[in-house]
Amino acid sequence: MSQTHPNQLLEALSWRYATKVFDAAKKIPADVWAALEQSLVLTPTSYGMQPYQFLVVQDAAKRAALLPHSWGQKQVVDCSHYVVFTARTEVTAADVAKLIQRTSDVRGIPPEKLDFYRDMILSDVVNGPRGKVAHEWAARQAYIALGNIMTCAAVLGVDACPMEGLNPVEYDNILGLNGSGYKTAVACAFGYRAASDKYASLAKVRFAPADLIRVI
Amino acid sequence: MSQTHPNQLLEALSWRYATKVFDAAKKIPADVWAALEQSLVLTPTSYGMQPYQFLVVQDAAKRAALLPHSWGQKQVVDCSHYVVFTARTEVTAADVAKLIQRTSDVRGIPPEKLDFYRDMILSDVVNGPRGKVAHEWAARQAYIALGNIMTCAAVLGVDACPMEGLNPVEYDNILGLNGSGYKTAVACAFGYRAASDKYASLAKVRFAPADLIRVI
Repeated sequence: MSQTHPNQLLEALSWRYATKVFDAAKKIPADVWAALEQSLVLTPTSYGMQPYQFLVVQDAAKRAALLPHSWGQKQVVDCSHYVVFTARTEVTAADVAKLIQRTSDVRGIPPEKLDFYRDMILSDVVNGPRGKVAHEWAARQAYIALGNIMTCAAVLGVDACPMEGLNPVEYDNILGLNGSGYKTAVACAFGYRAASDKYASLAKVRFAPADLIRVI
Repeated sequence: MSQTHPNQLLEALSWRYATKVFDAAKKIPADVWAALEQSLVLTPTSYGMQPYQFLVVQDAAKRAALLPHSWGQKQVVDCSHYVVFTARTEVTAADVAKLIQRTSDVRGIPPEKLDFYRDMILSDVVNGPRGKVAHEWAARQAYIALGNIMTCAAVLGVDACPMEGLNPVEYDNILGLNGSGYKTAVACAFGYRAASDKYASLAKVRFAPADLIRVI
């Protein structure tokens, strides 16, 4: 595998910032967006459960409807691609069965050989401790996807703005999620910064490494 | 900025997997690890609050103590670098003041010019809706960091294994976190796969893109 040099990675991570103003005329090329969608698909999750769906909202009317429920942040309507990260409202035995079937199909293993694996998952995220906080657990997995795709976007030279500032109940209504088994967790806008975005040139604010990292 | 080609990124994301057996003799070079630590520091968070600390557990005795509380997964002791992601137990006005002071220092803005920003954060993550679920909100931010660093590791050719399978209460005890204002959220092992790890060659199990991504 061809590796990226650490300095090139850090350059990308330093280049990125929460883009406040997108250039509404600039769209992400299809091959680049395809890679970003694939990065979502490839996100690692606990048990490989993938308890989420990603909604790519391209319909202008839907985006306009989401805007007032996004603290008025115009990134929603001006970005190239707007992704709403949804997470399972609960995790069921059927969810686990679906993963087992998929594992069987992809790896050519008879499903019954995966009984131990199935029971382990069931005893945790359905009937066990994580089952009690299933939506929150699922939302955390969605946040892995968020962290993953923001970094992927940065290395591909695509701007992004993560959006927690939204009303998830109104999002669920507008996106038709009620009764779907998924709820809005967070969103992220992707595209290209406008030349006018003064935030692009501000120094990045992070605590000192010694305040964030302890070696023990 | 020099950009990565989408195919190179996808190659890295496909190469990665949840490493089950690390080569205990192979250590991550200092410059590569420094970049991964810096990727943690640069993680984007809601309001830039960074409500977490990352513990890099290099002490062999501490790692051995964590092992039985990690479902016996030997990655804890065999990996090159073991990171425990902790999240704030609560979010306080002092946390916000610290961020405002840092913003003032880094950007050379008098703190009083940041009053609006401070009040907005206070009214949400301290006194508002997110304040009621502050630890969970902080944990989600830690998961952004997890998603970010796993992707960074992949593009640098470093193996990783995310670890939700751990007992956070025992981790907090062993790591001396009680009373610190931080709690264990998740962990991740970093290093290099052993040649003997049969999981490296298994096909990756992901649901079909159409099951995960909806364009609307």
